[in-house]
Amino acid sequence: VLTPALGRELVLTKDLLAEGVHYLADDPPDTVAAKLFAVNLSDLAAMGARPVGALLGLGMGPRCDRAWLEPFTAGLRAAAGRFACPLLGGDTIGGLERTVLSLTALGDVPPGAALSRGGGRPGDELWVSGAIGDAALGLALLRGGVALPDPAHAERVVAAYRTPEPRIALGLALRGVATAAMDVSDGLLLDAARLAEASGCAVEIALSAVPVSRAAEAAGTLRLELAAGGDDYELLFAASPHSRTAIERIGRRLKLRLTHIGSLRAGAGLSVLNADGRDVTPARLGFEHRG
Amino acid sequence: VLTPALGRELVLTKDLLAEGVHYLADDPPDTVAAKLFAVNLSDLAAMGARPVGALLGLGMGPRCDRAWLEPFTAGLRAAAGRFACPLLGGDTIGGLERTVLSLTALGDVPPGAALSRGGGRPGDELWVSGAIGDAALGLALLRGGVALPDPAHAERVVAAYRTPEPRIALGLALRGVATAAMDVSDGLLLDAARLAEASGCAVEIALSAVPVSRAAEAAGTLRLELAAGGDDYELLFAASPHSRTAIERIGRRLKLRLTHIGSLRAGAGLSVLNADGRDVTPARLGFEHRG
Repeated sequence: VLTPALGRELVLTKDLLAEGVHYLADDPPDTVAAKLFAVNLSDLAAMGARPVGALLGLGMGPRCDRAWLEPFTAGLRAAAGRFACPLLGGDTIGGLERTVLSLTALGDVPPGAALSRGGGRPGDELWVSGAIGDAALGLALLRGGVALPDPAHAERVVAAYRTPEPRIALGLALRGVATAAMDVSDGLLLDAARLAEASGCAVEIALSAVPVSRAAEAAGTLRLELAAGGDDYELLFAASPHSRTAIERIGRRLKLRLTHIGSLRAGAGLSVLNADGRDVTPARLGFEHRG
Repeated sequence: VLTPALGRELVLTKDLLAEGVHYLADDPPDTVAAKLFAVNLSDLAAMGARPVGALLGLGMGPRCDRAWLEPFTAGLRAAAGRFACPLLGGDTIGGLERTVLSLTALGDVPPGAALSRGGGRPGDELWVSGAIGDAALGLALLRGGVALPDPAHAERVVAAYRTPEPRIALGLALRGVATAAMDVSDGLLLDAARLAEASGCAVEIALSAVPVSRAAEAAGTLRLELAAGGDDYELLFAASPHSRTAIERIGRRLKLRLTHIGSLRAGAGLSVLNADGRDVTPARLGFEHRG
């Protein structure tokens, strides 16, 4: 039983993670718990909502034994505490071939203040938080598809994959500033195309402006590939050019890189431009966890 | 985004159903959708809550193709309409060996009015709605473990298994009347033991009073076995003997059989008594969907 804060609206989000699909079977269980919270709270952040609580659905596969459950549960407790998002209940079932995790997170916002992906307008600037592509690199590294000689770089990209940071404080700060927002879960380009479509606009992205980490630079991965990776859980948002100063101030206050990467235009569709202004939009924009 | 009704408390419930564990792979998809709603709304009913909305998590297994999804989705829509519980959103993933369904349902109650399983007191009478054991019989019939010559009986028990009826109106009517309530999902005896434990009481059940259907009588299944079946989704509740008239009135108004089957006592534990007053408590009280 939950008493909603007086005069606030509720937002709800639900994300499923499956072993071997959204996380690797040998990822440390506490990081799986952290990621489960992060992907859901990232959705709340994108709506400008404050976390209120969560419900867990745990479908246990054969690897979900006591040795796995103990650190997983500790990780859940840690995440619930860290994000001020208590676990309110849930359900556990067995008999599955692989573990399936379902979290429902509740958040609240002042009436009418929730951000959506559909509020962008032609002329708005497009921004993104953090660096893009580290999580996809981390997954590639764990799967042996890429090498990073510097252990600090390797650690950074693996952490980006396993324990993304939901941008809750940024989402709260963007209320009344951003015209549209969403989190980057399936690749920056694909998600930017979705934001533009929901807003009834075209979107243009300057590839050279897309922020990448030193680790990603060291890996030598093409920026276009990083921008079509997934699992970033950064916030992508549109805002009027008049909000530029306010946005820069938010970035300084939160010590979070916020980068202007493009703009919304009248029309439809996504264009990715290189430094010479040539259209380099790839055929595959991102990553859908459906396979 | 959801605007909570002013001054009401929210209750949340989440239940998972897995193909081959909680429903049979060849159950009609629309009945699977109905059952998914029913098991969650049954939880809300047990708290005396009114459904507000639901979120769906769909983890798709190999049998979850378009031919399955179409009637499943139609079933979801029908259930959402029938129970006034709109689907507010959700998440879909693929790559599973079997389909896993997760529903989160929201309900609301006036402040302080939510029923719980922990409010029972020694001297309270124990009641149950409907008939007990039909769903377990239906499952046994579908698995070929029991025969029911009368097709009307067979249809009734299969419907009890596939499309249980959440007792929403009863839950609402029991607010302020029942001292404790829960839904019967894992077998009447096991759930009665849980209600008693949560209430800090012992519980005594008169086996001959446990309501069973004509179909169950025709099947000749032992009443003790019916009372240890599962999936009934009837409401089990405790109430003061002074509330008997009020309860009987509720039953008449809702055209729902409500049966006084036992009582709470000081102490702890469950006793099942036969017509001679002999203790016939079985070793296995019920059914846990963990295997």
